[in-house]
Amino acid sequence: MNVHNPNSLQSDADQLWSLMEQLFPICRSMTGNGVRNSLRLLRRVAPIEIVEVPSGTEVFDWSVPDEWNVRDAFVKDSTGRRVVDFRVSNLHLVNGSRPVRDTMSWASLRPHLHTLPDQPDLVPYKTCFHKDEWGFCLSQAQFDSIENAAKGPYEVVVDTTVGGGSLTYGEVFLQGETDREVLFSAHICHPSLANDNLSGICIAALLAKHLAGKPRLRYSYRFLFAPATIGAITWLALNQGRLDRIDHGLVLSLLGDRGNSTYKRSRSGSHAIDQAVEHVLAHSEGDYEIRDFEPFGYDERQFCSPGIDLPMGCLMRTPSGEFAEYHTSGDNLGFVDPACLADSYAKCLRVIEIIENDRILMNRKPHCEPRLDRFGLYQSLPSQADARRLQQAVQWVLNLSDGQHSLIEIAARSKMPFALVNDAAGRLEAAGLLGNPK
Amino acid sequence: MNVHNPNSLQSDADQLWSLMEQLFPICRSMTGNGVRNSLRLLRRVAPIEIVEVPSGTEVFDWSVPDEWNVRDAFVKDSTGRRVVDFRVSNLHLVNGSRPVRDTMSWASLRPHLHTLPDQPDLVPYKTCFHKDEWGFCLSQAQFDSIENAAKGPYEVVVDTTVGGGSLTYGEVFLQGETDREVLFSAHICHPSLANDNLSGICIAALLAKHLAGKPRLRYSYRFLFAPATIGAITWLALNQGRLDRIDHGLVLSLLGDRGNSTYKRSRSGSHAIDQAVEHVLAHSEGDYEIRDFEPFGYDERQFCSPGIDLPMGCLMRTPSGEFAEYHTSGDNLGFVDPACLADSYAKCLRVIEIIENDRILMNRKPHCEPRLDRFGLYQSLPSQADARRLQQAVQWVLNLSDGQHSLIEIAARSKMPFALVNDAAGRLEAAGLLGNPK
Amino acid sequence: MNVHNPNSLQSDADQLWSLMEQLFPICRSMTGNGVRNSLRLLRRVAPIEIVEVPSGTEVFDWSVPDEWNVRDAFVKDSTGRRVVDFRVSNLHLVNGSRPVRDTMSWASLRPHLHTLPDQPDLVPYKTCFHKDEWGFCLSQAQFDSIENAAKGPYEVVVDTTVGGGSLTYGEVFLQGETDREVLFSAHICHPSLANDNLSGICIAALLAKHLAGKPRLRYSYRFLFAPATIGAITWLALNQGRLDRIDHGLVLSLLGDRGNSTYKRSRSGSHAIDQAVEHVLAHSEGDYEIRDFEPFGYDERQFCSPGIDLPMGCLMRTPSGEFAEYHTSGDNLGFVDPACLADSYAKCLRVIEIIENDRILMNRKPHCEPRLDRFGLYQSLPSQADARRLQQAVQWVLNLSDGQHSLIEIAARSKMPFALVNDAAGRLEAAGLLGNPK
Repeated sequence: MNVHNPNSLQSDADQLWSLMEQLFPICRSMTGNGVRNSLRLLRRVAPIEIVEVPSGTEVFDWSVPDEWNVRDAFVKDSTGRRVVDFRVSNLHLVNGSRPVRDTMSWASLRPHLHTLPDQPDLVPYKTCFHKDEWGFCLSQAQFDSIENAAKGPYEVVVDTTVGGGSLTYGEVFLQGETDREVLFSAHICHPSLANDNLSGICIAALLAKHLAGKPRLRYSYRFLFAPATIGAITWLALNQGRLDRIDHGLVLSLLGDRGNSTYKRSRSGSHAIDQAVEHVLAHSEGDYEIRDFEPFGYDERQFCSPGIDLPMGCLMRTPSGEFAEYHTSGDNLGFVDPACLADSYAKCLRVIEIIENDRILMNRKPHCEPRLDRFGLYQSLPSQADARRLQQAVQWVLNLSDGQHSLIEIAARSKMPFALVNDAAGRLEAAGLLGNPK
Repeated sequence: MNVHNPNSLQSDADQLWSLMEQLFPICRSMTGNGVRNSLRLLRRVAPIEIVEVPSGTEVFDWSVPDEWNVRDAFVKDSTGRRVVDFRVSNLHLVNGSRPVRDTMSWASLRPHLHTLPDQPDLVPYKTCFHKDEWGFCLSQAQFDSIENAAKGPYEVVVDTTVGGGSLTYGEVFLQGETDREVLFSAHICHPSLANDNLSGICIAALLAKHLAGKPRLRYSYRFLFAPATIGAITWLALNQGRLDRIDHGLVLSLLGDRGNSTYKRSRSGSHAIDQAVEHVLAHSEGDYEIRDFEPFGYDERQFCSPGIDLPMGCLMRTPSGEFAEYHTSGDNLGFVDPACLADSYAKCLRVIEIIENDRILMNRKPHCEPRLDRFGLYQSLPSQADARRLQQAVQWVLNLSDGQHSLIEIAARSKMPFALVNDAAGRLEAAGLLGNPK
Repeated sequence: MNVHNPNSLQSDADQLWSLMEQLFPICRSMTGNGVRNSLRLLRRVAPIEIVEVPSGTEVFDWSVPDEWNVRDAFVKDSTGRRVVDFRVSNLHLVNGSRPVRDTMSWASLRPHLHTLPDQPDLVPYKTCFHKDEWGFCLSQAQFDSIENAAKGPYEVVVDTTVGGGSLTYGEVFLQGETDREVLFSAHICHPSLANDNLSGICIAALLAKHLAGKPRLRYSYRFLFAPATIGAITWLALNQGRLDRIDHGLVLSLLGDRGNSTYKRSRSGSHAIDQAVEHVLAHSEGDYEIRDFEPFGYDERQFCSPGIDLPMGCLMRTPSGEFAEYHTSGDNLGFVDPACLADSYAKCLRVIEIIENDRILMNRKPHCEPRLDRFGLYQSLPSQADARRLQQAVQWVLNLSDGQHSLIEIAARSKMPFALVNDAAGRLEAAGLLGNPK
């Protein structure tokens, strides 16, 4: 399969950015209408099934929480002006806040206000799930201005609801020629944060759209759009019997910032997905970083827990917590570079291209070199660099196609691009010199 | 078990030094009363059994030698002055010298006198076991002074005895909860040399004392105080049937000088003792060196011979032959730094702490992360560094407790101190989240 | 066996150079009298059997080609002067050219003339096997001179024959104590090129002569002098049933230039031949390079094809294509340094010395160290460096002779020269302390 079509990349990049802009304002949370509305928007692009799991459902050591929704939230000063307003930015409300309707002094309000004194112009992103709390986030500048104006008492309204409902996630399943699956997962629970994780959500949706348009896929593909932690746990608990179909997987997050690509390996670090992503990064422009697995981060914590242990890594640019805008209002659309986002998307396509084409072949004439000149595959001294490289790839593939080496392994050992090795393998198959292992 | 009690370290260090001072003057040798008297002194500290093995006993390819003892030895000049005197320093007599009582010229005496011309103020340490020889060691300065005084002839007395007797060694055995053993070995055959090997002897005795005071030990501990080579061979020959109980071991030598710690790995280099010592050195202050096994050095030559092959390494500071004072009168109490000696002792305790606590545990809720917040083991964003580190340790232990990784391996992979990993494991066991493998 | 006799090295070096001079002028090719005559000359030195394989014989995917011979070839200008003359250098004729007898203009002749514009004084070496072509090679200077003289039309004579005959190769077989074989292979198809590959041919012949004179060889030795590619393929096809006797092998090529030694590993990189050659290079003077296998180069392409996969590496100095004189008239006798050629030869002898002597021995007294002093193999503190080194080698060999380590592996682990380790092993065998594994 040829997954990666350079001609479609620009239109995909445009659509990526359009999705980012549409989804950015929505107030997503662990549950509720924010997630639901986001999935409905994404459904215009990819064939997403929206799944509702009732509150209270037992999922491994956890249970699905009550559903949280928000209509409005604000703090009004004595002049009636909204000095903190959820309608301006959903980050102003601590995500998960319990309902409040009260009038209070500055002294009473103050412990419910959260700022970042060291980044005085940024609004922090905070949550208070599973607790009977409420609060507002604002910039230190805004806080100081309210305090200096001293126009209390303050009317505080948190118009939220918490109660039985459901946890919502989205799932795309694309049937391929086999039931062996590739799983992509992007957390969908963060409100107006662009890199974390609209970037992952939109790339996953575009990948699903792109693959849905392919007439032929070797693998089946599954895309999961679920809230972090509890969403992944819920999906894993409900799909335990099918997890052994998953041959490769990637958690997608933080894919739009201007930093280098970072790949965090699977738990064992030795799966084909590790080889594929590392190959793509090594053969792409720009620096990159490979990190060993550690049990922190995003939903690889669940996918790579010891009883699950899926062959999944995590593709990012700058890792979580390592950029100043992380979990603040600074992680906005301006923080994401459309070119970097598109670059991450293209890298995902190249990973898929490897996964789709990687295979172990058998040299059918393994005793000495076959007469390649009969198939136009050999010149004694090719004068053009391209021809020379292809010929070397042909020789590498023939030499290592002994049933012990996959094409991605041959690419790694020969230090050649996978596409070239795959090209050589295809020509050798066409010539009848390579076949499938018995 | 909590082995390492910082509060007791100072009193242990004081007792270490006091032992050094008491044992330094004794003229130890391969056999005889010097070893016996040293063991009697050590028995005041630790429950040492003194074992006598008769001369002539066959031990593998060797037999136990005759016993050697010394009453006095000197060279008197013609004025009756002792110009070389065993009572001043037992290094003056070549250890193992046969008895002599004679008067002789300078020319006849001279071949029996040994000096270090390149280190003119130091007396060398020399031995002549298994040979019908005798001799004296003295500084080049002393030699020159005698020669210049020219007051011969000289009365030479070496009042030693050689004959059937026994080889003496000391052994401490501390029964633990299991019969699996940890073996410490320190050679006890050197006379007044402080680093080589009073340092190892005194540390072994203090470790034995310290562990004997513990109400509970997982492992049984054995401490061996035996002459180098023949002592270790004798003990191994007499204990062949029990060697397979030994899970970990350390040869202790040269532990008091001011150099960095050096660890010489076991023969395979991949035993738990290697992981434990390397962990302790990596997480201690100061540089250190790890060396691969080689079949030279101290009694690891015997313990790691191919037919014995115990999981034993050797802990030292500056290795033998790599400091100028090695095997000279320069290796005296001034050459040993009490702080360095105490540091070596503390490192041994930390190694024991790892051995006692290292274990393989099983995550009892291995499907996704368990709800750690119910046990106070999880905060979404711990603000304090300590809490954050503990939480990470908890996640590492849960993730790798799959039956394949011991705690010391988890510490190595997570680059965390063993104590922190062990703390996390203990909390998880208490919470019922970790258990023993079946 | 003591293979390497320094006293005979100089006479061997002289004979090597004499062979180079005798063989250099001969016009070798893939087939024909050039190869035959070269083998007849070599037969004066080593017991070479000359094998003829009829044209048309099927060998794996190939068939033995028609035989090509050349009587004369030239270009005469209108004055009757040979302006390009095969008799001056056989490189002037494109090797494999079909017969021609014609008179033609400069314009018609010109496409058949090959030069190296960037190296205007060198004549390229070119071939046109399997094609209905002919041509001449000349320096750019010579080309310009002919063109400027403008003395056409030109009489062109290529007096060659192509037709049924045979492919010729030479083989030496030296029966050793066992049927296990060591294979050396040198390609013999290049005309007047000195480094590529008279150097390999002559070294192989001298090695064969040298070993033929040995009264006792553990291994059987086989030397192959065959045209590149088709010759190796032919030999492999005709000897398929015996390939599993080959325990070690080396392709010999490019061994006379002034560059450093280069070793290209076998396909797996982990055979004893790899250890042996790497040991010899590491313990020789001068820099060297070790390269991983790649499926390009000389006949290791065939010997290491996946269905053959012999334990063979390739010993060279500067690899093919990495020196400016490669495949030009610059690769002449002046390009080869007799001292470098002799050095390569000596390294081959040292490799053979290791192969002949490498073995796994068993310590017969593996419990603790045996009493080495009884065999003169131990002093407590050897004063001479040589004695100290030998004693350490003795201790290494005893410690690692547990049935898991061969002598070359002991040499690698102890970082000692194989000769010293072998010396120690021999002494220990003589003392009855080492024996053969059961």
